[in-house]
Amino acid sequence: MLKVPVHQVAGHRASDGNLGPLVDDSGRFYKPLQGDERGSNEVAFYSSFSSNTKIPDHIRRFFPVFHGTQLLEASDGSGLCPHLVLQDLVSSCVNPSIMDIKIGASTWPPQASEDYIAKCLKKDREGTSIQLGFRISGFQIYGNKESGFWKADKQFIKSFSTEDVRLVLRKFVSSNASADLDSDPDCAFASVVYGGSSGILAQLLELKAWFEDQTIFHFYSCSVLVMYEKELTVEGRSSGAAVKLVDFAHVVEGVGVIDHNFLGGLCSLIKFISEILTTPYEYPSKTCPHDTEKNRLCSDNSAME
Amino acid sequence: MLKVPVHQVAGHRASDGNLGPLVDDSGRFYKPLQGDERGSNEVAFYSSFSSNTKIPDHIRRFFPVFHGTQLLEASDGSGLCPHLVLQDLVSSCVNPSIMDIKIGASTWPPQASEDYIAKCLKKDREGTSIQLGFRISGFQIYGNKESGFWKADKQFIKSFSTEDVRLVLRKFVSSNASADLDSDPDCAFASVVYGGSSGILAQLLELKAWFEDQTIFHFYSCSVLVMYEKELTVEGRSSGAAVKLVDFAHVVEGVGVIDHNFLGGLCSLIKFISEILTTPYEYPSKTCPHDTEKNRLCSDNSAME
Repeated sequence: MLKVPVHQVAGHRASDGNLGPLVDDSGRFYKPLQGDERGSNEVAFYSSFSSNTKIPDHIRRFFPVFHGTQLLEASDGSGLCPHLVLQDLVSSCVNPSIMDIKIGASTWPPQASEDYIAKCLKKDREGTSIQLGFRISGFQIYGNKESGFWKADKQFIKSFSTEDVRLVLRKFVSSNASADLDSDPDCAFASVVYGGSSGILAQLLELKAWFEDQTIFHFYSCSVLVMYEKELTVEGRSSGAAVKLVDFAHVVEGVGVIDHNFLGGLCSLIKFISEILTTPYEYPSKTCPHDTEKNRLCSDNSAME
Repeated sequence: MLKVPVHQVAGHRASDGNLGPLVDDSGRFYKPLQGDERGSNEVAFYSSFSSNTKIPDHIRRFFPVFHGTQLLEASDGSGLCPHLVLQDLVSSCVNPSIMDIKIGASTWPPQASEDYIAKCLKKDREGTSIQLGFRISGFQIYGNKESGFWKADKQFIKSFSTEDVRLVLRKFVSSNASADLDSDPDCAFASVVYGGSSGILAQLLELKAWFEDQTIFHFYSCSVLVMYEKELTVEGRSSGAAVKLVDFAHVVEGVGVIDHNFLGGLCSLIKFISEILTTPYEYPSKTCPHDTEKNRLCSDNSAME
């Protein structure tokens, strides 16, 4: 029985008769091949990556396992359509908090068409990609049994500023995350999710070391998925913090050159997350966030000087 | 007495009545302020950088010392014009080999005008910037007393491919460098110039560590100058290998974000130079470079299989 993935946070969704990915109960994720070269490109990447003996095992675990392709009834009812058969990265999760972060200042490969470059460049400039070297493409943050997930709207995310990104990366590991961008996140889970020897930061640093050296692939428009389970964290169990790479429709050959575009963006994300660990209770967008009395005193003081 | 710098390898030259930088005998370099915002921007950068107490001393040494500005007779005879007064980085050199490498896939700051972005993007795509994260802007390689310098032509450099860049980075540290792109460089000075605890690679890695952390400035369109003295190297003395940063007309504030664009390009350059150190006698563009006999045998062998 195939169904629409519950925990998808970005990309086309297979609901309401649209074309999108499906999952089954055995932990597989079926992604319809996009009809143009993007589909064949992603298959080519997974085939090449799977068989490449130069990929170390500790790097391979960041990628979904590839099980080939399969003809399946498309979710939009358009008939049989080839699908990538991949590992469902969240099949064992109950209520995962997930963030999809598209890495790289540029999302277009150098050899792309003029039209495609212009389209991507516009998006890269409108979003935070050019400024930060990455942009948030989607997320869901689990609150609790009553509130469920905060799943942000696409248009809302598209309008994110640098400070919004900083705030959402804090909310992602907070016990009091809410959709209100003015509320102050407590970063209660920062040290267990982002920190530690198996936390998100450690995993990103492992990826970074590989990207400083590898010249096999350039990962344009690829996303880092960051995920963990808040309930496990609250119970004091391992948070299940994981970093995964997804979306390889625009991967090109590295031809002996490192992927400086991905690496630069990855280093920028690493810096954002490091800062949350070193200054968990800083509120960069406001000077006196909690205390309006203090705020007034600040003004009084400066008026008296 | 002001004169035209002998060892300038990129940028506008103050010869034949053109506007360009001048040097004096006391080790100072006078750079005319460009009339538009680039001039004031570069002054603003040097002022801000000089007085910023957060710049560590081991990083400060990568930058020319700034001595303020001064009104001077312009080299093009247009009258008095404000000049930046800087340290002349090569005043103590006799016959320096120098390479000017513009770092970053993008040479345009995000907040630049549409016209400027379009102009830069075109150059970044035509050169190697987008592909490699850097491009060679100019160089001079010292041969010997008879041959003097190989100073490459601007148009020739503009047409460089990835393989040309790889080759020139090898020729730069070779005893047999020549203008012939088909000749094989011996990389005789690679280990003393690029390698070692005070070599180019070590210096670039020091810069890299700073760029992974600093969020004060974004260095768009800035160059790394790489230099050494071949004669000293041949004599077995310290090669004088040095890395310097120059050209700050397009530096913008970092506002809490790392310069992922510069960092990515720097890491790419580091990889190129590391490869020369680990495989000094590899010839990536050809399989059997020296031995045509061997070349023929290769073909024969494959025909026999």
